[in-house]
Amino acid sequence: MHRTNLKILHAPADLQTVADAWRRSGKRIGFVPTMGALHEGHAALMRQARAASDVVVVSIFVNPAQFGKGEDFAKYPRMLESDRERVRDAGVDVLFVPETAGMYPDGYATFVDVEGISAVLEGASRPGHFKGVATVVTKLLNIVKPHTAYFGQKDAQQVAVVKRLIADLNVDVRIIVVPTVREPDGLALSSRNVYLDPAQRAEAPVLHRALRYAEDRIRQGETDVPGLKSLMAGMIAGESSGVVDYLSVAHAESLMELTTVSAGMPVLISLAVRFGTTRLIDNILVGANS
Amino acid sequence: MHRTNLKILHAPADLQTVADAWRRSGKRIGFVPTMGALHEGHAALMRQARAASDVVVVSIFVNPAQFGKGEDFAKYPRMLESDRERVRDAGVDVLFVPETAGMYPDGYATFVDVEGISAVLEGASRPGHFKGVATVVTKLLNIVKPHTAYFGQKDAQQVAVVKRLIADLNVDVRIIVVPTVREPDGLALSSRNVYLDPAQRAEAPVLHRALRYAEDRIRQGETDVPGLKSLMAGMIAGESSGVVDYLSVAHAESLMELTTVSAGMPVLISLAVRFGTTRLIDNILVGANS
Repeated sequence: MHRTNLKILHAPADLQTVADAWRRSGKRIGFVPTMGALHEGHAALMRQARAASDVVVVSIFVNPAQFGKGEDFAKYPRMLESDRERVRDAGVDVLFVPETAGMYPDGYATFVDVEGISAVLEGASRPGHFKGVATVVTKLLNIVKPHTAYFGQKDAQQVAVVKRLIADLNVDVRIIVVPTVREPDGLALSSRNVYLDPAQRAEAPVLHRALRYAEDRIRQGETDVPGLKSLMAGMIAGESSGVVDYLSVAHAESLMELTTVSAGMPVLISLAVRFGTTRLIDNILVGANS
Repeated sequence: MHRTNLKILHAPADLQTVADAWRRSGKRIGFVPTMGALHEGHAALMRQARAASDVVVVSIFVNPAQFGKGEDFAKYPRMLESDRERVRDAGVDVLFVPETAGMYPDGYATFVDVEGISAVLEGASRPGHFKGVATVVTKLLNIVKPHTAYFGQKDAQQVAVVKRLIADLNVDVRIIVVPTVREPDGLALSSRNVYLDPAQRAEAPVLHRALRYAEDRIRQGETDVPGLKSLMAGMIAGESSGVVDYLSVAHAESLMELTTVSAGMPVLISLAVRFGTTRLIDNILVGANS
């Protein structure tokens, strides 16, 4: 754990000036975009960035453009003081904390949309979510000018959208996808886990058990997707009060829903389940690298 | 006229490598994006870029994403050999001529949209046009990584869309707008002027006369926009066979249509007129800088 002099910047133009100077002096910039409420999942991203970069930038921005009406934008956990300590402990060089009005000033009008894969799964449940994600990621990459940016596999669809966006818009950055960090009982770390009451928290690991079960069946040669989905739905209904929003078995890049699993195809098994008002997502990749 | 060793590149990644090396060595990159069929208007852009930059990149790409169905994408003039000589004569360092499949490969899905100002004027007549423009400009800026990019005032709405996009997406580039270059009789240079038959060519300067007339009236204190528009329409109908697509008197940045001109307000007077199947546009800025 190497402690640096953490610099905190708020203005996009200030960070661009710093990034230009780094690049001119040949430094490799690593970037970890976050919405704050940092946990061990983010720590894993920061560790990888620190190990592979000369300088590391972390951003904390709860992006209003990716929250729909009635979603948890207002109550999304904000804890800048403890986040700052975590970022400092991770040996990060710059923490970027823009103001909302600095990111979306009056008259703001420009949006980036990755068509097709933005409309399914999370995008079907959360219309406009990935347009907000694609827009803010484009902005952040233009501000930070990183050589490499780190994203968590936990948000699998976000990864697919960002990879497509980077390739399509010729953004000159390398994307590293870091495996999901889990609690000992299998629950994927998420800033939203704090919303769970003790009973819901005790039930929530069923998501990972259902995913692992489906993964095991596929590895054993199961190809029938409707059958897998009904087994997963049965596990979740039988072992928890969770209400399934979606269960998906899809091609890992196109996110096209499958009816049959073919050998060697990279498959993303993903789900979203509500516990009361709290919505959790999780996923497992089968047969894919990264 | 200083002749350089003109390098021609086709692959986006190759140009990014060159741009990175230039930037590391402290060189200032000037960029002139074009669709080819270069004329003296483009030459003015290249001269300004050459004078103010260490290295100059010109792109030639007839961008399919900004042409609608039934528009002139297929017949848009292509003359790469003579363009190359013009670019060489202008002392340009790199000519970037991407393939369509290199810019929009199979599975391409990402589009940039500047809402509001993309929907009026040219955008109303050409749905999707500015989404195509905003997308390709974003891509080109990511590929060329210029410090400064040069656009012609002739495409006034394109300038407004690009300025908005640059500001909104935090693209770290300076935009220079170069005044419209005209024939001695006032006709704005355009790659599409070659479509005009001799009779249409003789009538086409009425566009500039109508714009100048409206400009003079505004400078003399006229504030009534409907009156101005009917005078312009009368001139065009009386002096040509041109069919007006639109006549606009708008705020120069928001492109909001005006009914009354206020003193000191930057005003864009613009129009689109069809001569047979050829559609010409032109504009004049009143009371604005750049």
